[in-house]
Amino acid sequence: MRILIINPNSDPVMTETIKKAAVQYAEGEFEVECMLTPGAPKFIETYEDDIQCADGMLKLVRENEGRFDAFIVACHDDPNLDAIKEITDKPAVGIGEASMKIASMLGHKFSVLSTDIHSVPGKEVLVRKYHLQDKLASVKAPVRPISDLADYMSFLETAKAAINDDLAEVIVLGCAGLAGIDKKLQNELGIPVLDGVVCALIIASGLVKYGISTSKLRLYNPEY
Amino acid sequence: MRILIINPNSDPVMTETIKKAAVQYAEGEFEVECMLTPGAPKFIETYEDDIQCADGMLKLVRENEGRFDAFIVACHDDPNLDAIKEITDKPAVGIGEASMKIASMLGHKFSVLSTDIHSVPGKEVLVRKYHLQDKLASVKAPVRPISDLADYMSFLETAKAAINDDLAEVIVLGCAGLAGIDKKLQNELGIPVLDGVVCALIIASGLVKYGISTSKLRLYNPEY
Amino acid sequence: MRILIINPNSDPVMTETIKKAAVQYAEGEFEVECMLTPGAPKFIETYEDDIQCADGMLKLVRENEGRFDAFIVACHDDPNLDAIKEITDKPAVGIGEASMKIASMLGHKFSVLSTDIHSVPGKEVLVRKYHLQDKLASVKAPVRPISDLADYMSFLETAKAAINDDLAEVIVLGCAGLAGIDKKLQNELGIPVLDGVVCALIIASGLVKYGISTSKLRLYNPEY
Amino acid sequence: MRILIINPNSDPVMTETIKKAAVQYAEGEFEVECMLTPGAPKFIETYEDDIQCADGMLKLVRENEGRFDAFIVACHDDPNLDAIKEITDKPAVGIGEASMKIASMLGHKFSVLSTDIHSVPGKEVLVRKYHLQDKLASVKAPVRPISDLADYMSFLETAKAAINDDLAEVIVLGCAGLAGIDKKLQNELGIPVLDGVVCALIIASGLVKYGISTSKLRLYNPEY
Amino acid sequence: MRILIINPNSDPVMTETIKKAAVQYAEGEFEVECMLTPGAPKFIETYEDDIQCADGMLKLVRENEGRFDAFIVACHDDPNLDAIKEITDKPAVGIGEASMKIASMLGHKFSVLSTDIHSVPGKEVLVRKYHLQDKLASVKAPVRPISDLADYMSFLETAKAAINDDLAEVIVLGCAGLAGIDKKLQNELGIPVLDGVVCALIIASGLVKYGISTSKLRLYNPEY
Amino acid sequence: MRILIINPNSDPVMTETIKKAAVQYAEGEFEVECMLTPGAPKFIETYEDDIQCADGMLKLVRENEGRFDAFIVACHDDPNLDAIKEITDKPAVGIGEASMKIASMLGHKFSVLSTDIHSVPGKEVLVRKYHLQDKLASVKAPVRPISDLADYMSFLETAKAAINDDLAEVIVLGCAGLAGIDKKLQNELGIPVLDGVVCALIIASGLVKYGISTSKLRLYNPEY
Repeated sequence: MRILIINPNSDPVMTETIKKAAVQYAEGEFEVECMLTPGAPKFIETYEDDIQCADGMLKLVRENEGRFDAFIVACHDDPNLDAIKEITDKPAVGIGEASMKIASMLGHKFSVLSTDIHSVPGKEVLVRKYHLQDKLASVKAPVRPISDLADYMSFLETAKAAINDDLAEVIVLGCAGLAGIDKKLQNELGIPVLDGVVCALIIASGLVKYGISTSKLRLYNPEY
Repeated sequence: MRILIINPNSDPVMTETIKKAAVQYAEGEFEVECMLTPGAPKFIETYEDDIQCADGMLKLVRENEGRFDAFIVACHDDPNLDAIKEITDKPAVGIGEASMKIASMLGHKFSVLSTDIHSVPGKEVLVRKYHLQDKLASVKAPVRPISDLADYMSFLETAKAAINDDLAEVIVLGCAGLAGIDKKLQNELGIPVLDGVVCALIIASGLVKYGISTSKLRLYNPEY
Repeated sequence: MRILIINPNSDPVMTETIKKAAVQYAEGEFEVECMLTPGAPKFIETYEDDIQCADGMLKLVRENEGRFDAFIVACHDDPNLDAIKEITDKPAVGIGEASMKIASMLGHKFSVLSTDIHSVPGKEVLVRKYHLQDKLASVKAPVRPISDLADYMSFLETAKAAINDDLAEVIVLGCAGLAGIDKKLQNELGIPVLDGVVCALIIASGLVKYGISTSKLRLYNPEY
Repeated sequence: MRILIINPNSDPVMTETIKKAAVQYAEGEFEVECMLTPGAPKFIETYEDDIQCADGMLKLVRENEGRFDAFIVACHDDPNLDAIKEITDKPAVGIGEASMKIASMLGHKFSVLSTDIHSVPGKEVLVRKYHLQDKLASVKAPVRPISDLADYMSFLETAKAAINDDLAEVIVLGCAGLAGIDKKLQNELGIPVLDGVVCALIIASGLVKYGISTSKLRLYNPEY
Repeated sequence: MRILIINPNSDPVMTETIKKAAVQYAEGEFEVECMLTPGAPKFIETYEDDIQCADGMLKLVRENEGRFDAFIVACHDDPNLDAIKEITDKPAVGIGEASMKIASMLGHKFSVLSTDIHSVPGKEVLVRKYHLQDKLASVKAPVRPISDLADYMSFLETAKAAINDDLAEVIVLGCAGLAGIDKKLQNELGIPVLDGVVCALIIASGLVKYGISTSKLRLYNPEY
Repeated sequence: MRILIINPNSDPVMTETIKKAAVQYAEGEFEVECMLTPGAPKFIETYEDDIQCADGMLKLVRENEGRFDAFIVACHDDPNLDAIKEITDKPAVGIGEASMKIASMLGHKFSVLSTDIHSVPGKEVLVRKYHLQDKLASVKAPVRPISDLADYMSFLETAKAAINDDLAEVIVLGCAGLAGIDKKLQNELGIPVLDGVVCALIIASGLVKYGISTSKLRLYNPEY
């Protein structure tokens, strides 16, 4: 089994972070490859960013459909995931959808750790798109703007506030770039901390193994 | 006041239909222009179609921002409307959002006339995006596939079924290409029939006159 | 085009405030008249107040149906709006419904500025009646009781709290008597501030121009 | 204990029907009186009807507050119930609210038997007002217009359709004038059939005995 | 009429507290008996506790079905209530369901006083099970862990916080063991305070008198 | 990795069916064992059945906690799943929850194939418990009662009705005993058909591999 993880942005550092988390989970049981998206912005933050990475992402899927068994979109906002579900016959999984749906099985409510308060409304829109709004404790960003994604202490503090103030029972990392702090955070907090890349691998590898993919009947039918 | 209506597809016939409806409403009180989207597919039906018209639509907005006071997206699925709300300081209105929110003020529940049963799930997703799912009687498409958008009798029959079977009290035309049959249908049915192009002009011209545009605080902030 | 704005209460000062905002928006493009309701209480605050202004409001509509093309109910609680939608064939628009539905198109969530904490539950009931509860950031009243509606600083402070604490992206003035502070507030806050009177004029004048009115099929049928 | 049942309309026959059902339930354990509303329409069907019975209903409450321990509004649309909850310190119960909330405890979903298809939207609005929309199987009216409320066979047939087609498990009589057919219908259908008058008496007499009435803190505070 | 109140736990002190409240309400108009559940845990706090009291509760119902006209489950989490509704032909009422549905008729939103913050998620699950989530102001537990259920001042303080911070208008006692503080709390707070045991007696005695019980059509059919 | 699949009933034939599906999916990559529940009823259909299998299920978990890495509850109603999540530190997954949450990622709406119309309300309750009610096309049972679970043609016909009448895009097998017909049905229907046993294995094996289990903070804390 071979799974292609598409990083919708063009940042090689974040691509490497994602790959590391993925390889560690795959443990040689299946192959994972991680590609950045040519022509995409360095970060995906706005609606226009979603558009700017779209062509590159679809091209990656089309060029690699023969070589891979499933595709993962590795940005927590799941940009262009619907289009990818539509164009490929292989399973397509977003790290946002996978992580939040798995989180919903593990406790009463979950909080999404976000990098900046500006992204809260957009994440709320996504949560509701997946019908998870009533399982959401909060989308929580550090009170003070963070300097970089490596600012572990800020995220720890933010997660603690989600647990105590919003009664979160599960933490979801709201950015692919946070992959790698899940276990450290989980050990400190004592509750499940979910990295979307791994969650998407769980779903994608399972679907491949089971021989299931997206329904092409109507919503994701590319040819109607 | 000048309003630019963007037809997200590249069909000159549909562009003309839209323009005619718009000019008739504007009646010389404000100027409307209607442009098709260069490089866009002939029809917008799939998620990939939304992506393929995106660049062209954004380019139209950017090139014309100085000359117009508001922008209208004239496809009932409101493709790339969020991105346009984000990139321009002028009001941006979709014919889907405008028509369905106005419909919600005029009766208990509304039905959306759609051209094909394949588009029903996508329209339901859109209705819920706008938080209108509980005001929706049904998305209704002709039982038999239609040959073209001019198949008036099919839409009349479909609207009657929506009224009698689903208890719709207002009809929304679910495709910009249906602009022009609203009054004929309304006269026959005896209940309000809304063309999205006109509804979007109502909102857009009103916002311009009032000096109101999209909030750029967080969700539609292009620069965070 | 002539639009009658009905102030459900009997306060001539508030009637004047409303009229001023309306005339300024109409700018001579259409005529607006503003009438207070004979026999109504000075303020509309309770359920009984709604009843006490009902007869007068309906009488105003009936006496003026021939002379006007649309009716606006200019109290943010939209008292007796359903009955007016029922008895007249002309469009009938409430400033509560119009302002909050327009607000829902302009940003992620809106807050309603209210005059007193006692009115919060009633406004929440209204918001849910219009199916807007998931677009509501908060109904927010000044922490300290205000002396009068001219206490601008209290409303500014309340709006800022809505923006920062409740993540509101749009502000709706929750009382017709606040008409007139919209632009000042908007300039200071940097996000859209909506006066219901103007919003209702946008919808009402548009409906008249478009030849659309309330569906009389079932819910608003006066004769079944 | 003395409970006043207010029939919002002015029909003496329906008043008698209501009284009979009430007296039969009270069985001498408490006193019930049933009054029609002076000045009210003969039937309550429209929004304007609600207004036309309002003054009379409030007057009845005020004149009788000293003599009674609770008030019941005996029209299934609960007209002016909010205002009555507001003006009296005694418990005020509507037959719509009481019957549907009790129904929600007795089975998966309930259907409301209505007299005419025109009333379906209004009843759906009421059901949602009470947050019961997800417990509703259907509002169901006889397919053929009924000649009078005594058309038992039509209601039996309608109830059977609700059970079989909409999977209703409980039937609620949607009109005070149907009081009296509950037991006959229940025997034939084999599932609970609820008359709102009795349901309101259950709640009202219980509240009186328990010393509980409407909260006057904010929503029903008559003096803020 | 004879009503059996089943205390799902095996604590004789709490059983006595419940009985006292019940007898005081019944006032000799009907008989109430209160039994603890043999073999049950001393307190019902976890999902496993629900299971451990199940056999004993069902046995109590079966052994006493001939002698009683209705059954009440006197733990605010309504453990095993669905099974009891299923196995008996007599009305079965939970103190959680009864108190919260009655609360929903008395004011805008209610808060549930809980004994410990750990129980908040479970109570939220219950509130949603009864479709009351939008009528809930909050589930509120004392900030500091309480020493015992007699810690009146903690609950008073908690109720005040629910009123002021969460805008609760009605208070529901969230534990059968709190029976007895309702009137004292109500006098101090000035808003309705509901003890579930009494609320369940209101519903159960009313259903018995009316000749209504659980629908056995599908959801609670013991024999399909 | 070793996963224990608990069949909540005591039917060895159904246990064998489940095991076969599980072993086929595991393909030797991890070990699966499948046990029936001693003392449980032969079928799990009622609320009392849930109780009667509870002790046996919990005992199985406790006795086998040391030997297994995860537990699966293999009845589509997920009986006692909450209690098992509570008592074990290992991941616990229900076939109902897993299959329906995976279904929600694969198409617009899913239908659950049920064995009998009597089970529809109970399944609707379960779907809503998992917050999936808006992703549900229908719970659909064969129109004519089936003789046994091997009545493939009935389920095929039922699935086709779900697709055509309710617009289902994904089919979920609503009974563990249907394991084994998934691929045959999928080939005939052309859309994804999900067996819950496999879906639960996907989630459970993934959680084990990832080192994630149920949050014990509050809702599933066995010791508060």
